[in-house]
Amino acid sequence: MSGWLVVAGLGPGAESLVTPEVTAALAEATDVVGYIPYVARIAPREGLTLHPSDNRVEIDRSRHALHMAADGRRVVVVSSGDPGVFAMASAIFEALEGLPGYHHLDIRILPGITAMLAAAARAGAPLGHDFCAINLSDNLKPFSTVAHRVALAAQGDFAMAFYNPRSASRPHQFARVLEVLRAHCEPSRLITFARAVSTPEEALRTVTLAEATPEMADMRTVVLVGNSATRRVGAHVYTPRSVP
Amino acid sequence: MSGWLVVAGLGPGAESLVTPEVTAALAEATDVVGYIPYVARIAPREGLTLHPSDNRVEIDRSRHALHMAADGRRVVVVSSGDPGVFAMASAIFEALEGLPGYHHLDIRILPGITAMLAAAARAGAPLGHDFCAINLSDNLKPFSTVAHRVALAAQGDFAMAFYNPRSASRPHQFARVLEVLRAHCEPSRLITFARAVSTPEEALRTVTLAEATPEMADMRTVVLVGNSATRRVGAHVYTPRSVP
Repeated sequence: MSGWLVVAGLGPGAESLVTPEVTAALAEATDVVGYIPYVARIAPREGLTLHPSDNRVEIDRSRHALHMAADGRRVVVVSSGDPGVFAMASAIFEALEGLPGYHHLDIRILPGITAMLAAAARAGAPLGHDFCAINLSDNLKPFSTVAHRVALAAQGDFAMAFYNPRSASRPHQFARVLEVLRAHCEPSRLITFARAVSTPEEALRTVTLAEATPEMADMRTVVLVGNSATRRVGAHVYTPRSVP
Repeated sequence: MSGWLVVAGLGPGAESLVTPEVTAALAEATDVVGYIPYVARIAPREGLTLHPSDNRVEIDRSRHALHMAADGRRVVVVSSGDPGVFAMASAIFEALEGLPGYHHLDIRILPGITAMLAAAARAGAPLGHDFCAINLSDNLKPFSTVAHRVALAAQGDFAMAFYNPRSASRPHQFARVLEVLRAHCEPSRLITFARAVSTPEEALRTVTLAEATPEMADMRTVVLVGNSATRRVGAHVYTPRSVP
């Protein structure tokens, strides 16, 4: 039997948000590869080998997965959320670029519920109009690029979703992003901090830009910034579909 | 029994992309409300009333759903893709704003696989770095806003996903969007036209900006524009995770 490689999105945490397509791929897999906490979500079974690995080794992990698929294994690389949004799909293709002999391999990406859409659904519909998704981490790009993109998004009155807003090793950047927002947006702009949506640790909090502080975000938080028309109705936050 | 209203994302078309959470809500529903082709995806059963309605009546449809939930019905409003991305969730909250007596109702939004993420997965990972989602229709906003946002997104070197790029009643706007892109992006920029992803009519085509023509898009197409680093590897299109 010839091998294949699937990059599957497990969604934000709840099993009820895993698509049947992903569940079916996992049922056929011989090997599951991924970051430790995501592989921990996969139930062990006979004939399935789990390959958990640490964070920040995405290219090594991708090469390992490609080698196994080339050897005839049925490999699922698990990603949280959607694999194409700040997750493993691009890492797989980066690794594939360096391995021309593998360009013919059967590689499929299976979409998942990405964090910003799970968070938006819990809050109401804050991304209900044009929006941008921005990774605030400067591990793979200069912080000046991050700040420039946030400023342009604010100028265009896009709603925004920020991934990886803040970590122990990057405690100060989110404070600078809030400064960029304050330079362009009114103080009453609504911001939702959504932590670990669909898990037992889920916590949502919506504040105004004036009230927002850097400590409201951590690495498990996705931050949703409304556009100038975003408002509350009942317990919900939503962005209207129209621009006057 | 008290009523509730769920706005559920059915994903782009394939049943294998409907989350178990949405399937469970549909199994409990007494009423399903939505645009005709989406309601047509729901299997009839005893105790379930289907309420298909035409396009462009989103606010009437929303009020109807809210009234039924207030009357104690268990109502699912079905949306394609994700209900929070250019779909029914914002319309529900707009209708709710005008009905203050209903602000206490049990309203939940259930996320789904939105078209751009299904399309990106099929193509590879063209949205693998910062990106914008823009609805090109000017039904609810001036076209100048559309053109301004596309220009800012290009200036920021965001990847982009365009919803509703072109319709019979708006044949010329996508041509203007291509002109905006040509003013800001190199001719080799990769653009993927993804039509009806995950349905039997699925068709994907990746071309350069120089080769792109307005006729490549219709209302069932989502258009994915790469950033300046987006490239091909094997049969895939992907955007690297890093900015040098």
